Amino acid sequence: MPGVPDRQERFDVGIAGAGQLARMTCLAAWPLGITVGVLGLENEPAAPLAAGVVSGDWHSTEDVAALGRASQLVTLENEFVDAAALAAVDSAGTPVRPGPRALAVIQDKATQKQRMNDAGLPTADWVVAQTPADLAHAGNDLGWPLMLKARKLGYDGYGNATCANLDEATLALERLDAGEGVLVERMIDFRRELAVMVARNPTGEELAYPVVETVQEHHVCHEVVAPARIGGAESKHAAEIALAAAAAAEGVGVTGVELFQLDGGEVLVNELAPRPHNSGHYSIEACETSQFENHLRGVLDLPLGPVEMRRPAAAMVNILGTKKGPAEPRVDFASSVEGAHIHLYGKSEVRVRRKMGHVTALASEADAALAIARRAVEVIGL
Amino acid sequence: MPGVPDRQERFDVGIAGAGQLARMTCLAAWPLGITVGVLGLENEPAAPLAAGVVSGDWHSTEDVAALGRASQLVTLENEFVDAAALAAVDSAGTPVRPGPRALAVIQDKATQKQRMNDAGLPTADWVVAQTPADLAHAGNDLGWPLMLKARKLGYDGYGNATCANLDEATLALERLDAGEGVLVERMIDFRRELAVMVARNPTGEELAYPVVETVQEHHVCHEVVAPARIGGAESKHAAEIALAAAAAAEGVGVTGVELFQLDGGEVLVNELAPRPHNSGHYSIEACETSQFENHLRGVLDLPLGPVEMRRPAAAMVNILGTKKGPAEPRVDFASSVEGAHIHLYGKSEVRVRRKMGHVTALASEADAALAIARRAVEVIGL
Repeated sequence: MPGVPDRQERFDVGIAGAGQLARMTCLAAWPLGITVGVLGLENEPAAPLAAGVVSGDWHSTEDVAALGRASQLVTLENEFVDAAALAAVDSAGTPVRPGPRALAVIQDKATQKQRMNDAGLPTADWVVAQTPADLAHAGNDLGWPLMLKARKLGYDGYGNATCANLDEATLALERLDAGEGVLVERMIDFRRELAVMVARNPTGEELAYPVVETVQEHHVCHEVVAPARIGGAESKHAAEIALAAAAAAEGVGVTGVELFQLDGGEVLVNELAPRPHNSGHYSIEACETSQFENHLRGVLDLPLGPVEMRRPAAAMVNILGTKKGPAEPRVDFASSVEGAHIHLYGKSEVRVRRKMGHVTALASEADAALAIARRAVEVIGL
Repeated sequence: MPGVPDRQERFDVGIAGAGQLARMTCLAAWPLGITVGVLGLENEPAAPLAAGVVSGDWHSTEDVAALGRASQLVTLENEFVDAAALAAVDSAGTPVRPGPRALAVIQDKATQKQRMNDAGLPTADWVVAQTPADLAHAGNDLGWPLMLKARKLGYDGYGNATCANLDEATLALERLDAGEGVLVERMIDFRRELAVMVARNPTGEELAYPVVETVQEHHVCHEVVAPARIGGAESKHAAEIALAAAAAAEGVGVTGVELFQLDGGEVLVNELAPRPHNSGHYSIEACETSQFENHLRGVLDLPLGPVEMRRPAAAMVNILGTKKGPAEPRVDFASSVEGAHIHLYGKSEVRVRRKMGHVTALASEADAALAIARRAVEVIGL
């Protein structure tokens, strides 16, 4: 079997994927003496710095099984890996963390929402719609416009549709329904979006990273400010909701919890990611232990590392592609922006809005950090 | 030629070596999109996470030439690479930084000392001795005991001998003299040892990292406390001497400057390393830009990153082997020491006093950081 080492050479951790999250996990793993294998192709971001590559595709049940045989433990960098394929890995003797059954609940945005509500956690009002009649009912109950979401495989806004009326919603239903209907949500007029990375291990330790503020652009995480510029009580409330959400989702390792904060201060759970998350990248420099190291610690059931910030404020800005073509980042220009920490993902081709990297800056207050990170992203020129 | 890629695939930076310093430089290079190739064997610390390995040995002129052909620029992780071999690489069109002529001066501890004195920088009194008669003279002039050092290839105390009298010195001369005599130094009764990493680039930027305190054990760097627990004026003085020493040595990238602080407060230059240095490892977590990133920035003539500390204090303790055998670090135990940042170098065999890794801790004051790092090193059990 190509790419699969002997039993005694199994990776400590196998990641079902080889993108930028796997890449940054590899960077965190080497100093700890943890070997990470990735499932993917040689030209993907994590491949050149993984301990090994299992050639294949995380969409393939067979390739996920090969990763399982090559690893002592399997984890994820995206939540779309087929839960049945992961359950088979688990049954074959390689633990999968977070667990395949918990992942199955998260993978489906409707069951994920139900799980949150069952745990007493507030979300936007929602229903599942399978027919135009369901949509009409939803429009009456929740009010137009409505947010329609594919139940599975949506990310960064792919699979979402904001629908002003029944005609638009009917078209979106046709497009997004994979057979079990779509998730229909009341549109939330939020004051701000927040996010919290929660780290957990099977022994029962749990830690919430600082509550951060996220700015999305075209449904893609664009900027993060840490900590969020909110009051202490608000922050404590958001952290509690995030911890409860990650617990309800049976998160192991890092769970990214996206939240809406409403004008009245109420906090709703938006979406969960059972893995390190774009809104946690600031932790590499800003926190005592990065989300990538704590993901490894969590899935390996090691004690979690402390998550306090090292400086009062941090900002992270994504490097999103602005054109199509070969990637030629101007590191020389960007490195002249004092205090800018550049993180490129090693993608050779730029596409519009593709995540090519990110920049983090630390400072004594948020605006200063944000100004540094924004300037560096601008001059890097991707 | 094995291991040498096509011209268009040349590494941005080639390192003549593949040890732990190259390994940590690779970790710093990936996020910047800088490809680092290393010269060494597949089982060396840097090999699994370099962009590529040029198979060979930095002792071999031919292999260093192969690294030069495979790279757009060559730098070092040790100062013993033959200066003539590096000069040949430079002549063949691949720049070597720091420059081979400057390296030749540093490689020889006698010419290094002379260079410091020529720049008006204070060192321990020294002479070169080639005969027992020279040693007797030195004993009269400098007083017994004397420190004898091989002029070339000494490190971590290898090549050094403390000699109580002429008989001991005569035996040491025989052992350490490679044909050009040995360096004989007055023994320095220092108050403490200090070190400063200096980053420089060809454009002329220069920055001094915080002055740190180092504790050697059996001539091996064992503990580092950052910043040194000395007054502001003392620290400023030490930093100025270090900057001047690195400039006199024509350092490019990072130069490690080891200093003695005497009881009267006087600071002497002890030794220079034209590369990242063990006493700068604390900078990975503790400083805004690590010594490894600034070494890359410096040799590539990119703007240097800021070097301020993120927390008030840091401590670094080396993980030195205590026995001989296979390396089985207890990361599970060590990771339970809250705040301990574990750095293993991936060496599969332990030997007594071999550098197997290090632990860094940040805190609000030095003693707290030191306690964390020491405890983690103890429980890692190597």
